Amino acid sequence: LNAWDSVITPPLAGRSSAKPRSTGYTMVLDKGLGLHATDDLLSLAGAYIDAVKLTFGTSALYPEALLRAKIERIRAANCDVYPGGTLLEIAVIQGVYDQYLRRARELGFTAIEVSDGTIELAVALRREVISRAVDAGFKVISEVGKKDPKEEIAIGLMHEEIALDRSLGAFKVIVEARESGRGVGIFDAAGNVEVDELDQIVKGVDDPNALIWEAPIKNQQVYLIGRFGSDVNLGNIPTDEVIALEALRVGLRGDTLKLALKIGTWKG
Amino acid sequence: LNAWDSVITPPLAGRSSAKPRSTGYTMVLDKGLGLHATDDLLSLAGAYIDAVKLTFGTSALYPEALLRAKIERIRAANCDVYPGGTLLEIAVIQGVYDQYLRRARELGFTAIEVSDGTIELAVALRREVISRAVDAGFKVISEVGKKDPKEEIAIGLMHEEIALDRSLGAFKVIVEARESGRGVGIFDAAGNVEVDELDQIVKGVDDPNALIWEAPIKNQQVYLIGRFGSDVNLGNIPTDEVIALEALRVGLRGDTLKLALKIGTWKG
Amino acid sequence: LNAWDSVITPPLAGRSSAKPRSTGYTMVLDKGLGLHATDDLLSLAGAYIDAVKLTFGTSALYPEALLRAKIERIRAANCDVYPGGTLLEIAVIQGVYDQYLRRARELGFTAIEVSDGTIELAVALRREVISRAVDAGFKVISEVGKKDPKEEIAIGLMHEEIALDRSLGAFKVIVEARESGRGVGIFDAAGNVEVDELDQIVKGVDDPNALIWEAPIKNQQVYLIGRFGSDVNLGNIPTDEVIALEALRVGLRGDTLKLALKIGTWKG
Repeated sequence: LNAWDSVITPPLAGRSSAKPRSTGYTMVLDKGLGLHATDDLLSLAGAYIDAVKLTFGTSALYPEALLRAKIERIRAANCDVYPGGTLLEIAVIQGVYDQYLRRARELGFTAIEVSDGTIELAVALRREVISRAVDAGFKVISEVGKKDPKEEIAIGLMHEEIALDRSLGAFKVIVEARESGRGVGIFDAAGNVEVDELDQIVKGVDDPNALIWEAPIKNQQVYLIGRFGSDVNLGNIPTDEVIALEALRVGLRGDTLKLALKIGTWKG
Repeated sequence: LNAWDSVITPPLAGRSSAKPRSTGYTMVLDKGLGLHATDDLLSLAGAYIDAVKLTFGTSALYPEALLRAKIERIRAANCDVYPGGTLLEIAVIQGVYDQYLRRARELGFTAIEVSDGTIELAVALRREVISRAVDAGFKVISEVGKKDPKEEIAIGLMHEEIALDRSLGAFKVIVEARESGRGVGIFDAAGNVEVDELDQIVKGVDDPNALIWEAPIKNQQVYLIGRFGSDVNLGNIPTDEVIALEALRVGLRGDTLKLALKIGTWKG
Repeated sequence: LNAWDSVITPPLAGRSSAKPRSTGYTMVLDKGLGLHATDDLLSLAGAYIDAVKLTFGTSALYPEALLRAKIERIRAANCDVYPGGTLLEIAVIQGVYDQYLRRARELGFTAIEVSDGTIELAVALRREVISRAVDAGFKVISEVGKKDPKEEIAIGLMHEEIALDRSLGAFKVIVEARESGRGVGIFDAAGNVEVDELDQIVKGVDDPNALIWEAPIKNQQVYLIGRFGSDVNLGNIPTDEVIALEALRVGLRGDTLKLALKIGTWKG
């Protein structure tokens, strides 16, 4: 039970509370929390976190014992944990993808991100990479979009990738926005949502809940909650913003309290 | 005793060191520190912190036992601790304000923030809300200003609110600047101080020490220290900036060391 | 051994792994980590950190016992530790420089930063300040550049200072960019590298490895790694960016993985 449950009703409805969640997914971008900070995060916010991404190739820089201990704690809090997609891209290019999956399993990772944010993955290879990870028993989160805005992919191709990845068994498809959330994908250089871009992506997807939006910045989260509801899937949440995001999801922060009052789900 | 006391004299004079302080108040905005981080903060910077705000409605997202443990630690460091004003606004709209105060007391909170940053509080209701919190034995910090710049209140009304709140026993009145400190109240979109706005506020207040300035960004803190002195009351200080702010207050950082040299309080 | 060593080869070559390093130096700017956070940082990233700067005069705000405990932990991880240059500037102006060096030694600091970012140091005094710190057995890191862009020094003078400091035994000379990395030294107001400024500095220095670049922002780090290689000396790295920077140095992040692919050091 939470501290104010006997007094306060969360103003914004629609948040699912039970894990494992298939909607309302919150993925946290971890750039290198140590064990004390990991314990802090999980004991306070574990209920609100669905997955922890040890971003880019950072997990390759951990002493092994420390990485194992951290993964164990994250799993004990009933969260998925996976290495950043960049590490997979490196494994693919280095021709060690099978070893990558085996090692990920040994280390305790429960999920795999399949991306081609930096490299090119031909469709056949993308198909194989996803399928093998699914076959190996991982929850697969595939990514669409490029890290470099100069390389942005055509919307039709993105729709094809999303459909393909889902048909191959990807749990969700995540839309690239990097750690910064600026000048990439659906966000302009100031981090504001480019609604047209977002509309185009959504238009070609049968189930918007199949998508996770990387949205590291508050105004992005507010927009997406307003657009898709409390239980929109969000990723690349900074570790120190998890509670703040959860407050947004349930209307315990000004921006979405306002929304709750406006759209009439206020329960006062 | 601090580490360099036998050698270095803080360059900028005027900082009061003893708690409880009625001037030079530093309020920290806490978005969800766990217990290790709370211990870290208090053991290093507890002497420089007067109050910890568990901001917006975040405290409603804590497991109860963890919240109680955290509040206990904060109080043991001789700091006030209170929930964000948004939580009070929700309680008021949900018609559970009495229960809110009782629960706050049970959980161990020592202070209450009364705000209408998101909702509207008619004067009669504002009066009642403040009075009841004062009567219940809380240190009351009331807030003026709106979270949404489109709703900015008239300066005359702000002066009336400040005077009213003080007459009702509010300990201080805090000037809204949100967590971001940008495009709100006395700060422009880049976070710079709009001196005219600030002047207008100050002009209608008999004692500037009655105010706490929310000032999350360094250049804001530097300006306010330059304007009102080392012991200006500041709020919404990020948890990882407390020591940096204290360094500014006493001239142990370039920006205010410069100030100390210029205004002749240099003690070399 | 690190977690993925048996599978993944770091894509970008040239990173030296052994400490003490004379090249590839990473200096971390610490604004006030407590002991749990310090332990977290060192246990995860200690191998990638060469020095921890307790920035500005923050170390003068620590309870003595806590400072000693923290310094001990940092030294145990085989990292240098030193107070910010601003504290030295204050000691010099207050006429207590000898006591400053003695006290730094007593407290356990291993290095000294000599700067004149805020005050003016005449050449003769600069010479004396550096020499005395060297004679006292400290590793000396001297700094060139001003905190205030209006005071920028002439490039010729900077070259003279760098040469002088090196001749006096300074371990490295660090180029000022403050904590912010914006609108100071080689960085414009948006934090982008002003390549001309950088070229001018480099042109007058016999060994670029004599320099440490303060570079708190990712795009700055990417540029400098691209320009000078994995083992460029970097400083003012935020404590929560150390692993992310190391990922950049070895090509485990998109930005420099791309670089690795482009410049042909890819080992796949």
